[in-house]
Formats: sequence, C-alpha cells, structure tokens
Amino acid sequence: MNKQLAMALASGILGTSILSAVHAADPKPQDVVEYRKSVYTVIGWNFKPIGAMIKGEVPFDAATVARHAQYVEMMSKAAPEGFAKGSGPDAVKNTEAKPEIWTNPDKFKTAMSNFQQESTKLAEVAKTGKEADIKVQFGKTAETCKACHKEFKKD
Amino acid sequence: MNKQLAMALASGILGTSILSAVHAADPKPQDVVEYRKSVYTVIGWNFKPIGAMIKGEVPFDAATVARHAQYVEMMSKAAPEGFAKGSGPDAVKNTEAKPEIWTNPDKFKTAMSNFQQESTKLAEVAKTGKEADIKVQFGKTAETCKACHKEFKKD
Repeated sequence: MNKQLAMALASGILGTSILSAVHAADPKPQDVVEYRKSVYTVIGWNFKPIGAMIKGEVPFDAATVARHAQYVEMMSKAAPEGFAKGSGPDAVKNTEAKPEIWTNPDKFKTAMSNFQQESTKLAEVAKTGKEADIKVQFGKTAETCKACHKEFKKD
Repeated sequence: MNKQLAMALASGILGTSILSAVHAADPKPQDVVEYRKSVYTVIGWNFKPIGAMIKGEVPFDAATVARHAQYVEMMSKAAPEGFAKGSGPDAVKNTEAKPEIWTNPDKFKTAMSNFQQESTKLAEVAKTGKEADIKVQFGKTAETCKACHKEFKKD
C-alpha cells in the first residue's frame, strides 16, 4: 500500500463508493456468487488468525493483527457487491445465501453495515497493539458475523 | 476506509508486512489453495470491469475505475500468502499452480513483484481519471498477469 493510495483512501474514494457500488461489467449470477464466496474466504483467512492469537493458539503479533484487521475491514467494504440482485438461490444453486437478503434488503443492509462498522473499529483498535482491547473488539466483530449468518445464511 | 486507517496504510503497515507475511494460524494446504483462488477471483472481479470500460463495453466512470484499481492493488499485496510452502500440486489436487512456483521461488517472486508494482501504478494512474493513461497502465498490468500465468499456471 503506497502513500499516494493511502491518501486517496483517506479522501474517502474507496470507503464511500464501495457501499453503493454497482459492478461495471454486469456479471453473471454465478460470477457474483463466486465473488461473494471469495470475499468471505479472504475475510475468514484474515479474521481467524486474529482469533487464534487472542486464544493463545499462536503467539500474539501486533503487526500481523493490524494487517489482518485492515484486510477484514477492506473486504467488508467489498462484500455488498457480492449480493447483487439476481444472484440469490432462485437464480443459482450453489449458494447458502437466503432469499431474505433480497426480500428484506433493509434488514440485510443493517446487518452488513454493523459488520463493516465493527470491522472498522477492529482495524483501528488493532493499530494500538493493545491485546485486551483487540480481544473485546474482535468479539464484537464476530457477533456481527454470527448475527448476519444466522439471519441470512443457510446452515 | 476511514482516515485513521488510511494514515496507517500511509505509514506502510500494510504494504510492507504483506510481502513478508506468514499466516499466523498455520492453515491447511487446502485452505491456502481456497484462499489464493479467492484472492484471484477478487482481483479478476475488479480488474475485468476496468478493461470493459477501456474497451467501451460499458461507460467509463473514473470513480469506479479508481475503486477497482485500488482493490486490485490491495489484493496483489495479499496474493503471496496464497502460495505458502506445501500448497502445491504435490499436496493438493485442485490447483492449477505449477510446481515451479516453489522450485523456482526467485523467478516467481519477481513475477509477483512485477504484478504488484504495475498494479500500484494502475491505482495511482486511475486516481487521475485520465482514460488514455489508464488504458496504457491497464495494458502493462495485464501483461504481468499473462506473464505469470504463462510461467506458473496450468492452462
């Protein structure tokens, strides 16, 4: 991540546009599903090791936590694109996404926003390197994952 | 992306650590494969629409190009983690990664670095909104994709 780019991020180019993003190339439903699954795979890849450190399964490393937390936040901003209209279970077979994502969009948007907000806080706290604070915010972020999955993802 | 986070990125926390990242939770080979496939899916999701705009298939939108280009750069920094030792075709079946990635690591590292460098330039040029310049840098970035795939990815 270079300084110029970071400055652009600071200006809000990324954060604001992601939330209202419409994919330019009008992707096929199957491509949307593959994208959203990939986004959550990358989120899990970065989220899980933070938990492993908090649990003491691996040594706590502040820089690693900060990096992973930043990726979780960035991917949380990329997730909404993965739920484009027409990519639900009525259009594709290999998805665990519930129809409610599209039939109750306001509720889903709130759940997504909660995840994004807690992820942003986690990335901020992670930069402090304070393990106790990170543990608390990790828990709050994990709760938003669980809440959204319970409501909008098939078991 | 909030300002504090962007400032942290500006300080290089992300950019520098990603390149030497070692995943904290010692993931299984299959998880590494799933992660790297996901990273490239997200890269493609963001890279392709830039090409579609350049080709005139969809209207050119500077803000959208800038956002996609930033994600391509960020994911290029996340890609190396996806090629951890022990995640090659000798360990997993469902991968198009060639053994040369691990038997000729210096050459692969150079190819990866070329992609990261051109992606960074693309993100920078994209912020200018100058379509002609973006088209040139998009082509240079695409060449690094092709070069790496030709050498290190099965057809």
